[in-house]
Amino acid sequence: LQVNTLAIYGVGLLGGSVGMAVRKRGLARRVVGIGRSVERLSRALEMGAIDEMTTDLEEGCAGADLVVLASPVSNIIGVLPRVAETCKPGAIVTDVGSTKATIVARAERVFPRDGGPLFVGSHPMAGGEQSGVLFASADLFENASCIVTPTAATDPGAVEQVERFWRALGGRVVRLDPERHDRIVSAVSHLPHLAAVGVLLTAAEIDEDAEMLSKIVAGGFRDTTRVAASPAGLWRDICLENRDVIAEGLDRLAECLHHLASDIRTGEAEAIFEKLRQAREFRKRLLP
Amino acid sequence: LQVNTLAIYGVGLLGGSVGMAVRKRGLARRVVGIGRSVERLSRALEMGAIDEMTTDLEEGCAGADLVVLASPVSNIIGVLPRVAETCKPGAIVTDVGSTKATIVARAERVFPRDGGPLFVGSHPMAGGEQSGVLFASADLFENASCIVTPTAATDPGAVEQVERFWRALGGRVVRLDPERHDRIVSAVSHLPHLAAVGVLLTAAEIDEDAEMLSKIVAGGFRDTTRVAASPAGLWRDICLENRDVIAEGLDRLAECLHHLASDIRTGEAEAIFEKLRQAREFRKRLLP
Repeated sequence: LQVNTLAIYGVGLLGGSVGMAVRKRGLARRVVGIGRSVERLSRALEMGAIDEMTTDLEEGCAGADLVVLASPVSNIIGVLPRVAETCKPGAIVTDVGSTKATIVARAERVFPRDGGPLFVGSHPMAGGEQSGVLFASADLFENASCIVTPTAATDPGAVEQVERFWRALGGRVVRLDPERHDRIVSAVSHLPHLAAVGVLLTAAEIDEDAEMLSKIVAGGFRDTTRVAASPAGLWRDICLENRDVIAEGLDRLAECLHHLASDIRTGEAEAIFEKLRQAREFRKRLLP
Repeated sequence: LQVNTLAIYGVGLLGGSVGMAVRKRGLARRVVGIGRSVERLSRALEMGAIDEMTTDLEEGCAGADLVVLASPVSNIIGVLPRVAETCKPGAIVTDVGSTKATIVARAERVFPRDGGPLFVGSHPMAGGEQSGVLFASADLFENASCIVTPTAATDPGAVEQVERFWRALGGRVVRLDPERHDRIVSAVSHLPHLAAVGVLLTAAEIDEDAEMLSKIVAGGFRDTTRVAASPAGLWRDICLENRDVIAEGLDRLAECLHHLASDIRTGEAEAIFEKLRQAREFRKRLLP
């Protein structure tokens, strides 16, 4: 895989890492960074994440063979029509947004059916609690799950190219339809996160004397609540971007805990054992 | 602190470790192991956890200056009357049960008010996912939180002796009344555990294809659900022993998650941010 011009819209942690990874591997002749802030673009340029920069979306997209949209999800949705209009026929457009159903549905409305640029949704599961190009790395996608989310309307050749792209960056490609992607990511990432938030809020409600609690917390507590140390603003946005799926998952989790509480209160020893056993078995299958 | 005869009822992980720790530090002239299984007692003897063994509770308690009850909670509650009857006046009895309100209330009913043996509840927070004397260690209580739970009816001299005992074994002593102990331990240990169980059961409900989920699970999932790998039988018993407090905590957690779901569904950006921020701050105070 080699392209002439790669354009990256949004040069933060993910966009910057895409640029660095592509340049390190020589996968593109030219990497153009597109953004709104000259300062951020200049920093990406200095760090070697891009070869050129522009604040003009149309200019950046016009000559690109491959475009990676790496801005926040709401922003990706906002720029899709302009990207669809500007890119040349046959150019491939993908994104790194963590919510796929809304982005893919929007893309399928604004991209032309025939002869124009081709859209394929992606979600590389990489990047931690940091943000910004300063934390970008050429190896961010090594061994990361890179989910690609085609639908029946997606061009099969474009899907293959995008999958090859993530593999070239070291990712392990997983193909999922956009709705199932949103549900699974919600189950394995958003639910554990918000459960940890709930445990902390409930603990504070049960006994707000943090000093006393800190004398008693065990190692399990540290592990279980680690994710809740992430920035609140980042997670607020994730919650809002995938709101229906997350709200439904949380309601299910709450129901599950209510049932468990009821089993415990009435002393249903066998039902309790069975649930604990099932959870343990499922975890073993997930994390062999 | 030095006692003539220490008796340990129940020589599993905790009882065995008490014996090994006491013998290593020379804190008692004689350590007598009491139990129902000759095989288990013999193993404790071989491992150096006790000096002598007996399957006769009365015989074991009669000569003891300090008795540590280290059997499962329901069993401790069962033997308290016989222990109260047999121990000599001034002997101190404590336990290692993870639930304190029921044990302490029972002890206060069966121990004589004046001139008999003295009971003080304890809960050393040590021992992990293993059980049995084979996993016992003389250093198990080093730096462990050892909670001591006196009430207005507890002899102050006996409380001090028991606290000195746990400190001599390396523990960090925390004093709490039995009800608050149960609530706090439930908040920092049982709730995170059962939340992890709930997350796993809900994930399985959302998508039971464990093989697909395993390709996508992130590090956060591994950490958050680690506690759910513990033996189901052990945790079923913990749930049943502290059932009212745990059931109430779980219901609160479920309510908290329902509210969060509702904020997310209706897009209450500020309320979501505030909850995520509060959880993060509380965690920082708990785990500085």
